[in-house]
Amino acid sequence: MTSKGRRSKREVTAELPAPAADRGLLDRRAFLTGAVKVAGLVAAGNLSGDLLATAQAAESAAREILPWMKIPGQPFRGYGQPAKYEEEVKRVIHQPYKDIAPSAGNSMTPLHQLQGTITPNGLHFERHHSGVPDIDPARHELLIHGLVRRPLKFSVEALLRYPTVSRIYFLECSGNSFSNAAAEPPQKSCGAIHGMISCSEWTGIPLALLLDEAGLDPKGKWIVAEAGDAAAMNRSIPMEKALDDAMIALYQNGERIRPEQGYPMRLLLPGWEGNTSVKWLRRLTVTAGPVYSREETAKYTDLMPDGRARQFTFPMGVKSVITHPSAGMTMKGRGFYEVSGLAWSGSGRITQVEVSADAGKSWAKAALQVPILPLALTRFRLPWNWDGGPVLLQSRATDEKGNIQPTREKWAAQYSAGNTYHYNAIQTWNIRQEGEIRNVFP
Amino acid sequence: MTSKGRRSKREVTAELPAPAADRGLLDRRAFLTGAVKVAGLVAAGNLSGDLLATAQAAESAAREILPWMKIPGQPFRGYGQPAKYEEEVKRVIHQPYKDIAPSAGNSMTPLHQLQGTITPNGLHFERHHSGVPDIDPARHELLIHGLVRRPLKFSVEALLRYPTVSRIYFLECSGNSFSNAAAEPPQKSCGAIHGMISCSEWTGIPLALLLDEAGLDPKGKWIVAEAGDAAAMNRSIPMEKALDDAMIALYQNGERIRPEQGYPMRLLLPGWEGNTSVKWLRRLTVTAGPVYSREETAKYTDLMPDGRARQFTFPMGVKSVITHPSAGMTMKGRGFYEVSGLAWSGSGRITQVEVSADAGKSWAKAALQVPILPLALTRFRLPWNWDGGPVLLQSRATDEKGNIQPTREKWAAQYSAGNTYHYNAIQTWNIRQEGEIRNVFP
Repeated sequence: MTSKGRRSKREVTAELPAPAADRGLLDRRAFLTGAVKVAGLVAAGNLSGDLLATAQAAESAAREILPWMKIPGQPFRGYGQPAKYEEEVKRVIHQPYKDIAPSAGNSMTPLHQLQGTITPNGLHFERHHSGVPDIDPARHELLIHGLVRRPLKFSVEALLRYPTVSRIYFLECSGNSFSNAAAEPPQKSCGAIHGMISCSEWTGIPLALLLDEAGLDPKGKWIVAEAGDAAAMNRSIPMEKALDDAMIALYQNGERIRPEQGYPMRLLLPGWEGNTSVKWLRRLTVTAGPVYSREETAKYTDLMPDGRARQFTFPMGVKSVITHPSAGMTMKGRGFYEVSGLAWSGSGRITQVEVSADAGKSWAKAALQVPILPLALTRFRLPWNWDGGPVLLQSRATDEKGNIQPTREKWAAQYSAGNTYHYNAIQTWNIRQEGEIRNVFP
Repeated sequence: MTSKGRRSKREVTAELPAPAADRGLLDRRAFLTGAVKVAGLVAAGNLSGDLLATAQAAESAAREILPWMKIPGQPFRGYGQPAKYEEEVKRVIHQPYKDIAPSAGNSMTPLHQLQGTITPNGLHFERHHSGVPDIDPARHELLIHGLVRRPLKFSVEALLRYPTVSRIYFLECSGNSFSNAAAEPPQKSCGAIHGMISCSEWTGIPLALLLDEAGLDPKGKWIVAEAGDAAAMNRSIPMEKALDDAMIALYQNGERIRPEQGYPMRLLLPGWEGNTSVKWLRRLTVTAGPVYSREETAKYTDLMPDGRARQFTFPMGVKSVITHPSAGMTMKGRGFYEVSGLAWSGSGRITQVEVSADAGKSWAKAALQVPILPLALTRFRLPWNWDGGPVLLQSRATDEKGNIQPTREKWAAQYSAGNTYHYNAIQTWNIRQEGEIRNVFP
């Protein structure tokens, strides 16, 4: 406990909210309407404002004049930027071949520095195979051809005339959290481990509309989507998904899609592994079967225990991660904390997130932020009274199809050693007595 | 109609979707699941990709190599920015006293350039009375005092320990759309007229929690919120709102709140006129009554027909505006368009938006984007087959309390001439035969 002399002057006698699991996890309803009482939390430890013991002290604080209260501030800007004090809030960049291929790699959303569920566009994770192309939208076109009655070519301007939909969806790289598949737990921040996931409001044209216009040949069962960058990445998409919720996304969180997200347009396949949502989309070829491209043979396949590789495992698994507190942070003494994190599933809505402070022996249900949207990030929160001792903190998500996030052992048992895709196992943060937080495989 | 020779080669015989109101407004369900047919729209006019008449033409298009397909693109950035081709998408800046007070005025969200409902942080509207202060978060404190048992002072770091909530809320300046209250319709873009509204996912601490910790004196019925900038703007807030859904917002669309939005913290009063959501919040004084500050006496009051000024009209009215098409745009020939816009209400959810192409004689129901959230922007859309003739395009919103957006005449009749606050009348865009779009008062 922080030891401020003035703390002892407080008259705090309220009880703590009811416990919900061992090691100090409290009832998620502690702060719901009508049950708002922080006095118990203040009594429990170092959550609180500084008490101003006298009316004079309060008056003096009220009259304090700080430098920025004396001079006019900055005028208006056409496009704003974050505060200069937040410059450390940035994507975590991973360039494994920096010297020879600086534009190959990925950058990750700093989940541990953010709150809520929407990712600001400047911090959406990036994954590209040959850098971010500088595409002139006046020259870019989308071609739909192959097994169609009428091959069509669309300029960006033509597409902007079509009917649109907006939906909030997460996007997760199939390789997200891959470093946790290693034998030893990586000591990196939550964002550096799990940050190849982001969530935006996407606006675009239902792909079904454009396919309808082109006129599908009944023999057309797959679509090969190809990017217009130097890597020309391509993936085969089953027709069922293309006609379901696939969209040609043109806007991201209100504004035109960012260059690193596919400007001027990307395919968006909600809930599916990120690289199927082909960026800088230039071509959709309707085919009878998959094309077996590099990115679905040499890469993005799952190594199975029998030595074979499983292809076309599209939906991302049910998953959650505690972002606060998480690795690299330091606890500031025992007492109240809000445990908070993100949950998602490629199969629909999240229905439950549980939190454990004893490595899964006991679980407490977390509060889920509304609205709970299908194929979007869901923020969960749980009040916690940390006793200052060592803790193994975990979260476990369940989705509306009944899928439950697996332990690391269960996840690994599905695959051959060396598989790094579709890692969705429970994350364990070890909070040590001195407040240090580490990534562990218990 | 655009006259491309190749268009005549198409075999398009489908019927148009059912009409829903006069002058070409179509049924909103035309594109819902299972009813997807664009052939009728293609037949109706200039909506379509370019037809590639031969297999050779399609093959040739598929093989086209553009400059950015030949070279690696840019590597990763810690914090991304919009495409350079979108630099004209920026806030519309209004500095009425630019020479003597460059930091007084406002900047508006370019609604006509955006889609969906979330406003990217760089384009959130700004209104400040003495510029954007450069506040060091390590020195900023929030004081709660007055009629409380325990005056408290909170550092930013202390507040970051408290329980939080995230909600998607609009924020609208009380003076939004004020130029439409003039005698003659201003010829400006939709954003320049109506852009003092934006919508974000805000994360913060329920104010009720902090007031509970300070311990309210039963005589405390109002709270005076004061800003920590050079203008020290303050507003009186009824205790009922403070204990309801008010929050101390620390995050905006996932990242820490932007400087022009109140960094490091602002008060947020969902649905209420924007200036009550005091930015750069430094002080909350619990009082027995309102303080009758400059911003609730000389400003932000409504001039009534009897010559008196009505104070404390907090909730923003039910309102909508068509963003596409809108003033300053030029129609590209007759045929299919998607009419799209935004609706909101300070009293709750939007339940209906109707669109008229004949100045309110006939109305068609627009499709509302889900989820429809209370006190948030709602996107509406309606398919439209423009016959190329002159049109008076309007939208009219209804909220869950039964409030209906008024005509300009009905709105004006509530006030004395000269009132410019709380303007929520129906907007009319006049589309002329040659495709020009103007703001009119019909």
